[in-house]
Amino acid sequence: MPETIISYADLFEFTQAVFKKLGITDAVLATNALLSADLRGIDSHGVARLSGYIRLIEAGRIHPAAVPKIIYETPSTATVDGDKGLGLIVAPFAMQAAIEKAKAVGTGWVSVKNSNHFGIAAFHAMQALEHDMIGIAMTNASALVAPTFSTERLLGTNPICVAIPAGAQSPFVADMATTTAANGKMEILQRKNEEAPVGWIQDKTGRTTTDAHALKNGGALIPLGSDKEHGSHKGYALGSIVDIFSAVLSGANYGPWVPPFPAYVPMPQNQPGEGIGHFFGAMRIDAFRPAEEFKQHMDNWITRFRSAETTEEQESVLIPGDPERESEAVRRREGIPLHAAVVADLQALAKRFAIAFDMSI
Amino acid sequence: MPETIISYADLFEFTQAVFKKLGITDAVLATNALLSADLRGIDSHGVARLSGYIRLIEAGRIHPAAVPKIIYETPSTATVDGDKGLGLIVAPFAMQAAIEKAKAVGTGWVSVKNSNHFGIAAFHAMQALEHDMIGIAMTNASALVAPTFSTERLLGTNPICVAIPAGAQSPFVADMATTTAANGKMEILQRKNEEAPVGWIQDKTGRTTTDAHALKNGGALIPLGSDKEHGSHKGYALGSIVDIFSAVLSGANYGPWVPPFPAYVPMPQNQPGEGIGHFFGAMRIDAFRPAEEFKQHMDNWITRFRSAETTEEQESVLIPGDPERESEAVRRREGIPLHAAVVADLQALAKRFAIAFDMSI
Repeated sequence: MPETIISYADLFEFTQAVFKKLGITDAVLATNALLSADLRGIDSHGVARLSGYIRLIEAGRIHPAAVPKIIYETPSTATVDGDKGLGLIVAPFAMQAAIEKAKAVGTGWVSVKNSNHFGIAAFHAMQALEHDMIGIAMTNASALVAPTFSTERLLGTNPICVAIPAGAQSPFVADMATTTAANGKMEILQRKNEEAPVGWIQDKTGRTTTDAHALKNGGALIPLGSDKEHGSHKGYALGSIVDIFSAVLSGANYGPWVPPFPAYVPMPQNQPGEGIGHFFGAMRIDAFRPAEEFKQHMDNWITRFRSAETTEEQESVLIPGDPERESEAVRRREGIPLHAAVVADLQALAKRFAIAFDMSI
Repeated sequence: MPETIISYADLFEFTQAVFKKLGITDAVLATNALLSADLRGIDSHGVARLSGYIRLIEAGRIHPAAVPKIIYETPSTATVDGDKGLGLIVAPFAMQAAIEKAKAVGTGWVSVKNSNHFGIAAFHAMQALEHDMIGIAMTNASALVAPTFSTERLLGTNPICVAIPAGAQSPFVADMATTTAANGKMEILQRKNEEAPVGWIQDKTGRTTTDAHALKNGGALIPLGSDKEHGSHKGYALGSIVDIFSAVLSGANYGPWVPPFPAYVPMPQNQPGEGIGHFFGAMRIDAFRPAEEFKQHMDNWITRFRSAETTEEQESVLIPGDPERESEAVRRREGIPLHAAVVADLQALAKRFAIAFDMSI
């Protein structure tokens, strides 16, 4: 498929203009959050989703002018009501609350209800880094994943991100779906009409299949581990922990009741909560030991792992966050490649909102 | 192999007597922590390790009369120096500190250095449950696991436990090594001279092998996910997070420098910290929403997942903690099965410490 390259600055200006036209509470913040995915190479979660968010606003499922607020708190915790807002602005509000709590009492933990899709978890967790804090972000999502032994989709791909500052080294940033493969990878296979590896997806009877389209026919994604013998019950447990921290703790919808991203999919019946749930944490390094000491040891940890002996096929051992940081460096310099379908989508938005969409670079 | 059944009460009395003879700071607590593994069916981590702990005491690597203390703190955090103690008493001290912090400011987070093997993570995390708190426990361990793309053993099996209270339902307790299979499972295969499933272990060149003895020949356990295509980089990241929270945050040894459990294995050179590290968390449910509300929704969550449609081969979907709770119910009633080698070990200890070891049930 042909790709078009657009500069980050141009894509930023365009996206921000769209968010402004939509009346989003903080268009700059929402743009920063959304496009961090495009920079970091997580193309499934970036500007490709812009028109999906707009359809949710039009369906009344997202409230553009939302004002998230704290509805319950202690010195180290808060529960946030996202006011049905775009996750891209609700999540930064909640992460900021966690950081403020951490400044005051060492750590901060915030559970969020009544929100929507928040983009990539790493954007939110990484807000902690500049404060010499460890950042944690997770979210539940609509059910695509079957628990081990089940044929039913009861969990989302429920990602966890943990961002840890270092000294001279770049930070450690692990951002992972709790499934064997993220749904974005599955979507790529579907577009290319390629087969999925065994262990990524199961059919409606619960057997693993290589049919990347099995989700459409009652299939499900498989938790990290791929099958019971290889620990899929652990991936199922991790996805469950994300669901409970994000939604049972906050009062959001959990399990099979989480609202779907596509606006045309009907909402689940008898929902037990409000919207989608997230969970954030911030831990001040110097709440445990002097930050400089910690950073020296993190540098030592990273250096040791990066220089580990490799298998014959590989040049080096990666530190979590390496590929995304490299993608960001390249894309800030050389621009962001957009799939033809995404370009068409953005051109339609440009026309509709009467915004210039400059493809030059 | 022949097994002997011993009542929990008798095993408790015997183990406690041994710990008393050894001068352990709190023999009852250490026994409770150790034997919780035998009750829960995690035989590799229970009384089978008693003589291993004793050898560490004799080698001067564990200080029996240790007095753990808080050396650094904020309202929601603490760093504990384990005073080179048995993890079985250091970890409860630290978990209790986390619980006290949570009572005061909503959550408590404690990183521990200068400790040793702490038994099963679930025992410690579950201390939070009776306080209507979520409990979290993790620990690093000596390096048996190779990061994705590496042939070097740089991480332990680094388990994570999260224990979450419910109402009428039993609590959710996920306790998992961050590897595809726990080392205890590998030890069982080694004893029986059976092959390991593909994806559990790699040989010294980094290729997966079915040789359960490959660890002895420069091999390594594989992180949860089994290979890169199935997400082993996620298991590697999880194990790394446990290592960093437990040891880089506290000042313990991390990565390849974590002290080995067998007393005959030399200590790693140039260690960057002190002892083994742990990390604990306690989150008061009512720091986020009223506890009764949360518990009703947890009951709903558990009921929904437990009643999920199953694959043809399975009777029901399990909730994390189900198998261990069932094991505990049976073993409290019917006694604890001990492998012949363990019985011989305990008989030798009985003779040496002049303690009665009553095998009747």
